[in-house]
Amino acid sequence: MHSIVLLGSGNVAHHLFNVLQPFIIQVYARSAENLNFFSEVKTTSKQDEILDADVYIIAVNDDAIGEVSMLLTSKSGLVVHTSGSVDINTIVTYRKGVFYPLQTFTKAKNIDFKNIPICVEAQSKEDYELLEKISGNISNFVRRISTKQRQTLHLAAVFVNNFSNHLFHLAEEICEQEAIEFNLLKPLIQETVAKIQDISPKMAQTGPAKRNDIKTINRHLKQLKTSNNKEIYQLLSQSIKKTYEEKL
Amino acid sequence: MHSIVLLGSGNVAHHLFNVLQPFIIQVYARSAENLNFFSEVKTTSKQDEILDADVYIIAVNDDAIGEVSMLLTSKSGLVVHTSGSVDINTIVTYRKGVFYPLQTFTKAKNIDFKNIPICVEAQSKEDYELLEKISGNISNFVRRISTKQRQTLHLAAVFVNNFSNHLFHLAEEICEQEAIEFNLLKPLIQETVAKIQDISPKMAQTGPAKRNDIKTINRHLKQLKTSNNKEIYQLLSQSIKKTYEEKL
Repeated sequence: MHSIVLLGSGNVAHHLFNVLQPFIIQVYARSAENLNFFSEVKTTSKQDEILDADVYIIAVNDDAIGEVSMLLTSKSGLVVHTSGSVDINTIVTYRKGVFYPLQTFTKAKNIDFKNIPICVEAQSKEDYELLEKISGNISNFVRRISTKQRQTLHLAAVFVNNFSNHLFHLAEEICEQEAIEFNLLKPLIQETVAKIQDISPKMAQTGPAKRNDIKTINRHLKQLKTSNNKEIYQLLSQSIKKTYEEKL
Repeated sequence: MHSIVLLGSGNVAHHLFNVLQPFIIQVYARSAENLNFFSEVKTTSKQDEILDADVYIIAVNDDAIGEVSMLLTSKSGLVVHTSGSVDINTIVTYRKGVFYPLQTFTKAKNIDFKNIPICVEAQSKEDYELLEKISGNISNFVRRISTKQRQTLHLAAVFVNNFSNHLFHLAEEICEQEAIEFNLLKPLIQETVAKIQDISPKMAQTGPAKRNDIKTINRHLKQLKTSNNKEIYQLLSQSIKKTYEEKL
């Protein structure tokens, strides 16, 4: 069984701790008070107390990864970060890698890791295998992904998660203006996602922009009350139209 | 048990037929060849053969609703359409109403109506109750909704369904450029939707725009290859920023 030291005490660190607990021999955080959560394992906030381990997982903000990796220059274990966008070489130790779980984490909500893709990157066959072994214990969905691919995935994740969620928020606001419960839209949202399990989003597209229904588009633009929402409606409708015109 | 005549042979008509079959005494379509699907019930394409029924459901394109309702001026039953955006008064008969299932329908994919909101509109207490009775047979989620509210819901549905689905498509394209399987994003998409079952989309928002992470935003803009995607990224990021600035 491989030993892990986890560095960090934020959202991602909490979720990784929960799922990797059997392997974790210690948690490090700069501030001792952030370590209270990790009561079932050794903790430290001092560099010289960091234990020797097979793998060090740095789960901190992107900007702090390089700095935290400096604490580990004397260690022989593999040092990985968990970021979707940070270059592998931001880590200053000799053996370095990436362990990127592609998911959105909320502290309060437990997550089943079995279906979370874990994207790993390393610089030797041995380190790849080590990361795959550890990842395989918690997920059925492990992939070798280069830094460039990972950064692309991270960008695509902004589209599917951050931007979609914002559209849900705008829709909720639109409903509130007419005293409509947002709950009415939830089955539609669920079906939107269920559909693309079977067919591609390109095939699944419907709506006024897809069928170039100018009358409905104009009525919708009139109904919208803010220039922000009008702009978003127009730009996304244009983008949909372009997608299906190209097909002709 | 109430009797229904269904008018139409498209997508929505097929789904309504499947779920309302016990009540349907006849299906009408202008073109006889479109009636082949409905083999288990009487069909006609002639106006003077349309049977007397308690309710007539017009499930045709928005533009054809008025015209189809003209076929029914001699009937005493309630005439409803199924559109999210068409005014109730587009129907020319004396008793008129709306029966709007808020969902996206694909011909090939069966749908469980139990969780589909059905928005009803009528012009008398009796007609409301009639529509609620019929809707209640197939769905647990029946609501009285005015024309204005329905049109607002229809607009909000474009945001959560059409526009989100298009973002999924753009993400798939972005992945393809780097030979990344789009499947890697599906668990994230599912969690995005699972999250808003418990908390509002406004609370669920994460990402670089929310935390005003200019460095990541600029790197993402650089990574994007088309002006279309850059514009969408910028506009939605601005909109997210505005949403959370207003909170201060």
